[in-house]
Amino acid sequence: MHTIQVALNLNSYPIYIGNNILTSQEILVSHIHGHQVLIVTQKNIGHLYLKSIEKNLAGYQYDVLLLADGEQYKNVAEWQTIFTELLQKNHDRSTTLIALGGGVVGDITGFAAACYQRGVNYIQIPTTLVAQVDSAIGGKTGINHFLAKNMLGAFYQPQCVIADIDTLRTLPSRAYIAGLAEVIKYALICDAEFFSWLEKNSHLVVAKKPEALLHIITTCAAHKAAIVAEDERDQGGRRELLNFGHTFGHALEAMGAYQAVLHGEAVAIGMMMAAEISTFVNGLSAKDVERIRCLLTVCGLPVHLPKQLQPIELIALMKRDKKNKNGKIKLILLEAVGRANSQDSISEEGLVALMEKVRSNFL
Amino acid sequence: MHTIQVALNLNSYPIYIGNNILTSQEILVSHIHGHQVLIVTQKNIGHLYLKSIEKNLAGYQYDVLLLADGEQYKNVAEWQTIFTELLQKNHDRSTTLIALGGGVVGDITGFAAACYQRGVNYIQIPTTLVAQVDSAIGGKTGINHFLAKNMLGAFYQPQCVIADIDTLRTLPSRAYIAGLAEVIKYALICDAEFFSWLEKNSHLVVAKKPEALLHIITTCAAHKAAIVAEDERDQGGRRELLNFGHTFGHALEAMGAYQAVLHGEAVAIGMMMAAEISTFVNGLSAKDVERIRCLLTVCGLPVHLPKQLQPIELIALMKRDKKNKNGKIKLILLEAVGRANSQDSISEEGLVALMEKVRSNFL
Repeated sequence: MHTIQVALNLNSYPIYIGNNILTSQEILVSHIHGHQVLIVTQKNIGHLYLKSIEKNLAGYQYDVLLLADGEQYKNVAEWQTIFTELLQKNHDRSTTLIALGGGVVGDITGFAAACYQRGVNYIQIPTTLVAQVDSAIGGKTGINHFLAKNMLGAFYQPQCVIADIDTLRTLPSRAYIAGLAEVIKYALICDAEFFSWLEKNSHLVVAKKPEALLHIITTCAAHKAAIVAEDERDQGGRRELLNFGHTFGHALEAMGAYQAVLHGEAVAIGMMMAAEISTFVNGLSAKDVERIRCLLTVCGLPVHLPKQLQPIELIALMKRDKKNKNGKIKLILLEAVGRANSQDSISEEGLVALMEKVRSNFL
Repeated sequence: MHTIQVALNLNSYPIYIGNNILTSQEILVSHIHGHQVLIVTQKNIGHLYLKSIEKNLAGYQYDVLLLADGEQYKNVAEWQTIFTELLQKNHDRSTTLIALGGGVVGDITGFAAACYQRGVNYIQIPTTLVAQVDSAIGGKTGINHFLAKNMLGAFYQPQCVIADIDTLRTLPSRAYIAGLAEVIKYALICDAEFFSWLEKNSHLVVAKKPEALLHIITTCAAHKAAIVAEDERDQGGRRELLNFGHTFGHALEAMGAYQAVLHGEAVAIGMMMAAEISTFVNGLSAKDVERIRCLLTVCGLPVHLPKQLQPIELIALMKRDKKNKNGKIKLILLEAVGRANSQDSISEEGLVALMEKVRSNFL
């Protein structure tokens, strides 16, 4: 088992990464401080792991709530069911919520923990790749508004993150592949050596070999922990680089009303667009663009834009991005594989022109 | 004008108290850091004060949202209308929300500011007595759940509080009187001298004489600021004393489904109950109980329980109080006028017995 510390002033916490650690009573119980627990999960995930967790909770009042499955349910209505459950079962301020599942469960549950009685403890047990390498770490919690993604939320840190790589074995292939987009993102923005490693070992990664899983999750979690420690509240420091591929990606997701495309798939296409635009804005080499396209492709990720896409429509959605300031769209672009920067000087017209220019490379 | 500083580590801010200060551009603009503003208010209040504020916002993008009026609208649906407005008008993370109104507007707006894009700035302009002396200060924001009051929320501090005592002139008499319950609460829990002042000057207070208003609001705001500074997140320090009268009060409000009784009225009855129980538990003198009953009465506040009230029913609702821990009901009781303490050792049966005992004094 590897342990990575997220070093924050008042809210430091460990990320545990390993095989079959979800069953460890020692880890779990050491992060529960009251006598009440609410496990929030989804039917398919609960079916697989609830028993292992529940057997460690003898002596606690524990309740279980199943959320509906899917990004379209990351909404206020589903979030409210958590409060109803907590109140009906008389959970007080000393309760601990456990988010058992992927990014949707983690985000909703974390945000509910942030708001229940103005804040209770919670633990993240991510069971998807994207949650283990990204969304469960760093305290970004939230839900979607019907007009835009992740618009309601809080920065709220968990007591710990328990990333059990065994849970990835049962993860549907499409969801696993989508998670690789976030893995490749870390390599692209800050770790050229890791990118080379991924190029050489993509077959092991795609085949979910345990040593490969442990390596990619530990590497990504360490990057995320370091970046979060520098900039807990995402105030324009290095943390904004994590948004690489996401400005385009969120807009693509919004177009499909959160259903047609998985988050990681949208991010993969978004990273490709950002890379293509980076050749014009940052002088990213054509060779690097091809390396990126190639790695995304061998991992099974999409690199093509929806055919009917209108740049102007996409830009309208990009303007809703939380990173924007004073009406300017902020883009994270690449200087090279392993090095990113932030740009907010490109005008809307300039961006339309750039998108039209690179468009043919996608169709 | 008086200025009181709420001294918090990272989030210190001033409370301005004075005559006609709502019209001051200097105060308002010095606390707005972006170029966008959303004023959240209610029809009746907006009608009176919006123009004065809007004239100070030339050069800003400002939008106005009117919320429904009443504690029963302090709910998720109304809270969401703020996000819809912000998104439809493309407000970004640098926006500032202005809460113009009473406790309901302040609590909903503050909680929306806490959650919009994981946190934007906001300013409190309280226009009721209870908001000026209590709810607008200290960063407690939130909304009600249909099962219990104030169950969803955040600790989130404003940029400043602008308490204009002129706004109390147009406040309906019943709402003003209800606010006096919170004023008397401060005197009871920590300021015996202020209690004596209120006894001597209740006629000036009830008549809303400007000097009396300035004195009571400044005194209460200073107490609240000092208490909040000691215990920003209400973690069992002196801040819990502010709950005096509220454990009973919230339960009484919940019985009326937030409509029959005003918050301050419920608190007045709750303080009377707590005082009566304090004679048995803390040896509070009968003379002090009578002083309290007398001051509440001359101020026009209710001191009688609803006739049909069943102690056991009230206790069931009290068990939902956020201050409770490990299933025990926490009560704030008086040792004397000006001195309170916290009790969580009284059993449920003991509390039923105490309530039955004191009940006849109320009917």
